[in-house]
Amino acid sequence: MEQFDRSHLLDIFRHATRLRHLPRSAQRKRLPGQILATVFYEPSTRTRLSFESAMVRLGGAVLSVENANESSSATKGESIEDTARMLQGYADVIAMRHPEPGMPERASRVVDVPVINAGDGAREHPTQALLDLYTIQHELGQIDDLHIAIVGDLKYGRAPRSLAMLLRETRGTQVTFLAPPTVPVGADITSALTEAGVSFREASSFDAIAGADVIYQTRIQRERFADQASYEKSRGYYVIDQTVMDGLKRESIVLHPLPRVDEIDPAIDEDPRAAYFRQAENGVYVRMALLDELLG
Amino acid sequence: MEQFDRSHLLDIFRHATRLRHLPRSAQRKRLPGQILATVFYEPSTRTRLSFESAMVRLGGAVLSVENANESSSATKGESIEDTARMLQGYADVIAMRHPEPGMPERASRVVDVPVINAGDGAREHPTQALLDLYTIQHELGQIDDLHIAIVGDLKYGRAPRSLAMLLRETRGTQVTFLAPPTVPVGADITSALTEAGVSFREASSFDAIAGADVIYQTRIQRERFADQASYEKSRGYYVIDQTVMDGLKRESIVLHPLPRVDEIDPAIDEDPRAAYFRQAENGVYVRMALLDELLG
Amino acid sequence: MEQFDRSHLLDIFRHATRLRHLPRSAQRKRLPGQILATVFYEPSTRTRLSFESAMVRLGGAVLSVENANESSSATKGESIEDTARMLQGYADVIAMRHPEPGMPERASRVVDVPVINAGDGAREHPTQALLDLYTIQHELGQIDDLHIAIVGDLKYGRAPRSLAMLLRETRGTQVTFLAPPTVPVGADITSALTEAGVSFREASSFDAIAGADVIYQTRIQRERFADQASYEKSRGYYVIDQTVMDGLKRESIVLHPLPRVDEIDPAIDEDPRAAYFRQAENGVYVRMALLDELLG
Repeated sequence: MEQFDRSHLLDIFRHATRLRHLPRSAQRKRLPGQILATVFYEPSTRTRLSFESAMVRLGGAVLSVENANESSSATKGESIEDTARMLQGYADVIAMRHPEPGMPERASRVVDVPVINAGDGAREHPTQALLDLYTIQHELGQIDDLHIAIVGDLKYGRAPRSLAMLLRETRGTQVTFLAPPTVPVGADITSALTEAGVSFREASSFDAIAGADVIYQTRIQRERFADQASYEKSRGYYVIDQTVMDGLKRESIVLHPLPRVDEIDPAIDEDPRAAYFRQAENGVYVRMALLDELLG
Repeated sequence: MEQFDRSHLLDIFRHATRLRHLPRSAQRKRLPGQILATVFYEPSTRTRLSFESAMVRLGGAVLSVENANESSSATKGESIEDTARMLQGYADVIAMRHPEPGMPERASRVVDVPVINAGDGAREHPTQALLDLYTIQHELGQIDDLHIAIVGDLKYGRAPRSLAMLLRETRGTQVTFLAPPTVPVGADITSALTEAGVSFREASSFDAIAGADVIYQTRIQRERFADQASYEKSRGYYVIDQTVMDGLKRESIVLHPLPRVDEIDPAIDEDPRAAYFRQAENGVYVRMALLDELLG
Repeated sequence: MEQFDRSHLLDIFRHATRLRHLPRSAQRKRLPGQILATVFYEPSTRTRLSFESAMVRLGGAVLSVENANESSSATKGESIEDTARMLQGYADVIAMRHPEPGMPERASRVVDVPVINAGDGAREHPTQALLDLYTIQHELGQIDDLHIAIVGDLKYGRAPRSLAMLLRETRGTQVTFLAPPTVPVGADITSALTEAGVSFREASSFDAIAGADVIYQTRIQRERFADQASYEKSRGYYVIDQTVMDGLKRESIVLHPLPRVDEIDPAIDEDPRAAYFRQAENGVYVRMALLDELLG
């Protein structure tokens, strides 16, 4: 995330919008014959397909490793550096997902081809944060002077953490955190925001975000809880349903990094403010912009 | 299967034959840059590769999810509707295999891109039935006025069931069912045929099908039997070997949806009536026709 | 390996070098629309991606089966011959990896499309041997009159065995084997070399290979040892580190089929004689040459 300053972000967003409006036949002329390797040490069909869709739309090709943890040389004791050096012989760019923080960065240090972090453990998921902020700009026409509510699992959730960090590059932003008491926002985020001069507060009811421009809902991540009881206590705390929607501004948007379980009632999917599926599609355009910037 | 009436079937078959005879370079110009997502919640290398081969021959690209059950958001509790909405942001058409009946249809209801059923549990496998009937037409020059014997597992087998249903769109067809007593043809099929006016009978020996034009052999599906003993009783009941072949008509064809285990003796593979490998190849042309019809 | 005589090898190497120096746009014009199926009955990300990278660089497309053992019809009892006949309906060439010796050859006997052996059990890995010898030629400008040291697991290692066999096609070659006593070179190799008139000896210290032109280091394959104790005794026997490098000729090269565990100290990666990552990349060019020869 540290690599993206405000002007770089705005460049990427402009480029994403430009690419999305090109006809397919023109998109395909951007990266003909270039090769993306998607190497996933933990499964994420969503992120993998989004990268792969972006690459093939640009006319490139894809080499896919869906379960790098099982099928690759990692099981034989190969270092991530050696794996990366091998991959650079096969592909022009690598998108790597890894359960261990910092692995994509370690890979990037030893090779000449770009390595994109497609999520490294609980640490970062930078392309998710990029597409989140791009969606805000695309939907509301601005990234500044907004009231942004971030709801749900703020302790384990990689996506809300990455978004909060990225908001440091915006101006006049007011953040409200709304988390179940079991998974509160961490001090790493609040102190980073303080340092960057981003105004924020913690709230404990949907009333506090009635005036928000963006409601960023997240999943309570069952897989991160030690026991079922604490998980059950946390889920269902802040569910977005019609009643919540009725209390929100008319021009607001509801985002979610997906997948959702039951923290957004599907009954509101038809509400025009429900922007989460448009957000998922935006992931393709943002990743097209990144790939095109790196290889074009 | 209900979507395909006689004239639509004949259209698809004509189109399949047209596409197969185009030079590769012309095939590739049909769907350049279009994207197929193959999303398989249970493994089926055969069906998946057949779809993927069809798409790349038409100049399109493929996003592949070989083990959607394990690697996708389904494990996190995402609904099939949400998964479909995500996929539509990435691909122009979806081919979905699912162990649970009706899932591809549920997916298709919430998205704007076509969803092709690549097999849903024990219910239907429509593209298999299409390629079966197309093979009959391609091999014998007609789909009407034929005696068609369907042999083997008629209780659990999805392929023979789908084919039987499709035969309702043919004329003058005489069906003979030849099933081990453990896996007889179900009442759902016989009553549907009765209703459609298709003539059929059940037999108990190869003598009854000596005059058949098409012998459609199927595998006894071990994975559907509760115990090994009932499986052993059922397999080996109606094996097609040289002796059986000697009793068949000279202009007949033997089909099989494959994979086979031992219900057809490999010694007859060289017999020109053994059409099952040509049938497998036909799957590519039928799927090309479907994809081209949906996206072209 | 028996298929490649000296003049064929030299042809492939010439073609690999020609293809690597073509601009990407010209490479892509070699096999447009041709389809490679990579069918791997045991995982090997490295070999699979190398083949796939080769095919997409040539403008072709790829159908990928990463875990054929689990996902394919093999689990239902289909023979390798039937699987091959199915695949030939979908693809123009097949690259097959199988844990059982001879399976790719069995597949090749029943189909009209080429089947490339991508490794069959402990028997052969011919494309690895091709890329090894190509690397020697590319790095040193010759394949004859060289002193080649083969170090490490000479009992279980498929790669050193395949290379040794291929060296029978060279002239004036002197081979030195340097293996831990637990995994000595097998009589199948030594008698084949004797028969072909290739000079060789077995050594027990790095001193014996100080004058070697090529040091081919290999991994001690933990997965082949019955118990941990014998594995531990074998690894660490002949590690290449700076001290060893200091004793080698200035114009020598160090090769390794990769992945490595700890038999080469990463500290020497920057030494210009450390050619193993260039060797991995050469795999793409050699496979391009093979695919282009078979389909072009």
